[in-house]
Amino acid sequence: MTTDGTETPAPVHGYTAEKSSHLKRLRRIEGQVRGLQRMVEEDKYCIDILTQVSAATKALQSFSLELLDEHLAHCVVEAAQKGGPEAEEKVREASDAIARLVRS
Amino acid sequence: MTTDGTETPAPVHGYTAEKSSHLKRLRRIEGQVRGLQRMVEEDKYCIDILTQVSAATKALQSFSLELLDEHLAHCVVEAAQKGGPEAEEKVREASDAIARLVRS
Amino acid sequence: MTTDGTETPAPVHGYTAEKSSHLKRLRRIEGQVRGLQRMVEEDKYCIDILTQVSAATKALQSFSLELLDEHLAHCVVEAAQKGGPEAEEKVREASDAIARLVRS
Amino acid sequence: MTTDGTETPAPVHGYTAEKSSHLKRLRRIEGQVRGLQRMVEEDKYCIDILTQVSAATKALQSFSLELLDEHLAHCVVEAAQKGGPEAEEKVREASDAIARLVRS
Repeated sequence: MTTDGTETPAPVHGYTAEKSSHLKRLRRIEGQVRGLQRMVEEDKYCIDILTQVSAATKALQSFSLELLDEHLAHCVVEAAQKGGPEAEEKVREASDAIARLVRS
Repeated sequence: MTTDGTETPAPVHGYTAEKSSHLKRLRRIEGQVRGLQRMVEEDKYCIDILTQVSAATKALQSFSLELLDEHLAHCVVEAAQKGGPEAEEKVREASDAIARLVRS
Repeated sequence: MTTDGTETPAPVHGYTAEKSSHLKRLRRIEGQVRGLQRMVEEDKYCIDILTQVSAATKALQSFSLELLDEHLAHCVVEAAQKGGPEAEEKVREASDAIARLVRS
Repeated sequence: MTTDGTETPAPVHGYTAEKSSHLKRLRRIEGQVRGLQRMVEEDKYCIDILTQVSAATKALQSFSLELLDEHLAHCVVEAAQKGGPEAEEKVREASDAIARLVRS
């Protein structure tokens, strides 16, 4: 959200078109984390809390897979079309991000 | 921890002793998820968002590993000491929770 | 394999009863890894290789979840019944193994 | 490996240049899986087996991350340069492979 009233357009990344859907997802995940706090406060059973943690983790993971897909489809493809060192740099950067995802 | 002097004991699970530390962790994770919303709103670079998603995912994972450790050390050990079908049930339940964690 | 008719009893762990089923699984995984070598040798398409790597990884994961379940049901439960420092040690050890699984 | 002396060039994928290093890795992983069979046969301690399973899983994961990096750097970049539906198809395919990796 550019709430600042300036006319300078915000930078456009792969995910910009999906912004409101991303925000909706993240707000839902925030709700899940708040739900976890309530469960701990109310001394809910550990296993039930763990089930909810798995759900929140999966939701974060799906979010990141979607973001990554958009990043490949836009930023990486555009860099590849320009070619040169920027293309290589974008691929390396995406590979590093994928490795972090796979290992987290 | 029921530090309020009331006589009604709260149900005691494995994690009860660590309640305030768990709540602190979960509030920090909530802050991370809110930080992600800000990054999306401000059109931050996808790769930087992905890095933060990985951090939040790892934090959720550590939280669940701690919860699980306490669950094994308390609920499962106590059920094992009583023996019988309840012990088996607790182990099965813990194994299912571990499988969900490993697969999420 | 102690198929040799000696009288010395083999050490008995949680998984001993399931030994032949475990060996069968591991041989199948070995076959998958050998299949991967063939795919690389025959210059198969990267994405098809990746699909097979995911299948082998999942098979290893299922194997470890089964092993862990048996370990909890036998070694950890028995240690808990004896109580004392050995019970604590077994739980700590199991928690560390779970953390390695979740993070791998 | 085209040890057959024919003149027909093998298809060239992203990973072809790294073929012998990939084969070496996969043979090492095969050795790890065989080592696991020996451990089960010799009734080794469950936790020690689990540690080795985690090592083999991590090795498979690293292999797939390298393969994926080469795939992005070659196949996806080339498809992006040609543009059109093939580029989209390659990105979708890579995203699906990443999702399988993250979820396995």
